[in-house]
Amino acid sequence: MQYSSKLIEKAVQEISKLPGIGQKTALRLVLHLLKQDEQYTRSLSEALLQLRTQIQYCRQCHHISDEPLCSICRNPHREQTLLCVVENSQDVIAIENTAQYKGLYHVLGGVISPMEGIAPSDLHVETLLKRLENSSIQEVIFALSPTMEGDTTTFYLTKKLKNLGLKITTIARGIPIGSEIEYTDEITLARSIAARTVYEV
Amino acid sequence: MQYSSKLIEKAVQEISKLPGIGQKTALRLVLHLLKQDEQYTRSLSEALLQLRTQIQYCRQCHHISDEPLCSICRNPHREQTLLCVVENSQDVIAIENTAQYKGLYHVLGGVISPMEGIAPSDLHVETLLKRLENSSIQEVIFALSPTMEGDTTTFYLTKKLKNLGLKITTIARGIPIGSEIEYTDEITLARSIAARTVYEV
Repeated sequence: MQYSSKLIEKAVQEISKLPGIGQKTALRLVLHLLKQDEQYTRSLSEALLQLRTQIQYCRQCHHISDEPLCSICRNPHREQTLLCVVENSQDVIAIENTAQYKGLYHVLGGVISPMEGIAPSDLHVETLLKRLENSSIQEVIFALSPTMEGDTTTFYLTKKLKNLGLKITTIARGIPIGSEIEYTDEITLARSIAARTVYEV
Repeated sequence: MQYSSKLIEKAVQEISKLPGIGQKTALRLVLHLLKQDEQYTRSLSEALLQLRTQIQYCRQCHHISDEPLCSICRNPHREQTLLCVVENSQDVIAIENTAQYKGLYHVLGGVISPMEGIAPSDLHVETLLKRLENSSIQEVIFALSPTMEGDTTTFYLTKKLKNLGLKITTIARGIPIGSEIEYTDEITLARSIAARTVYEV
């Protein structure tokens, strides 16, 4: 496409690198920005830059955070005996939005996937094991997507945790197999946490 | 939604103000940015800001431009006798991408719409009339959307231009290439029969 403006071309090019946004949508967004107040583009641009440069990852649970320890880990009112293991920060946000779960989290940063070359050593497994030693945690809930990779990861980790004397559960399969946690509706997701079942090895 | 991070919240809030982007999509984009190299967010953020602060509108045709006179108006190889009147810059870009039209443009900046309170005085009509006086333009092509508002605007402007001795045309209305006759609306179909053209073998 030709835009007769280098500025437009550059902006369209950068925006269309985002997932799910093609050149036509990018152009529509660019022309929308031009119609809006300059202040909006300033605050959008600034928010993106601040986000990317100032964001941190919680040193305990690896969730995205504004501080070295995230607001969930810092909160003394969360149940300190419950730990929910999830794939990524999207999943933490999705579960938090059900307002049903009051325990802590551990973000693995992915799931084991031989196809994509993701091994347990690429995930936050070591910090999970270290965290569970001498902690107040009594139950570990696996809330990984019910896919081949998610199930493999759950299986791998439950074997690792077997000798720690913890109660190990997985969220109930109210979630349709093959779908992803971040896109599940809140009611189904909340119910699946409430109806979690004991994972038997 | 709660994001447990003010930075995420702010970025999601700003992105979801864009048309067609809700909170879930905004969050997906934000988390995508976090996974990418910091340099990408820098160049995206910069491209948006530069676009919004440095863009200009051509003082002759009102198309978006990097300079006071746009690249189309500056180009001496464009046919200086043809002027295509369009609603907005998107339409210029769309027509340019056909690579069929070699004349000049005039961007009205909208169409007359009593419903939305857009009067001729809100559009670049004065500059159009001034431009046509003592110019090399011999034909004015109206390329406005075939809607109530577009037709009203074409009608209004053709009356204004009547005494200038110009050839006045509108782009052909008919059945789009690739569509099927049985699904075409009755008005378009009726008009396409009335305005049938000689088939030359």
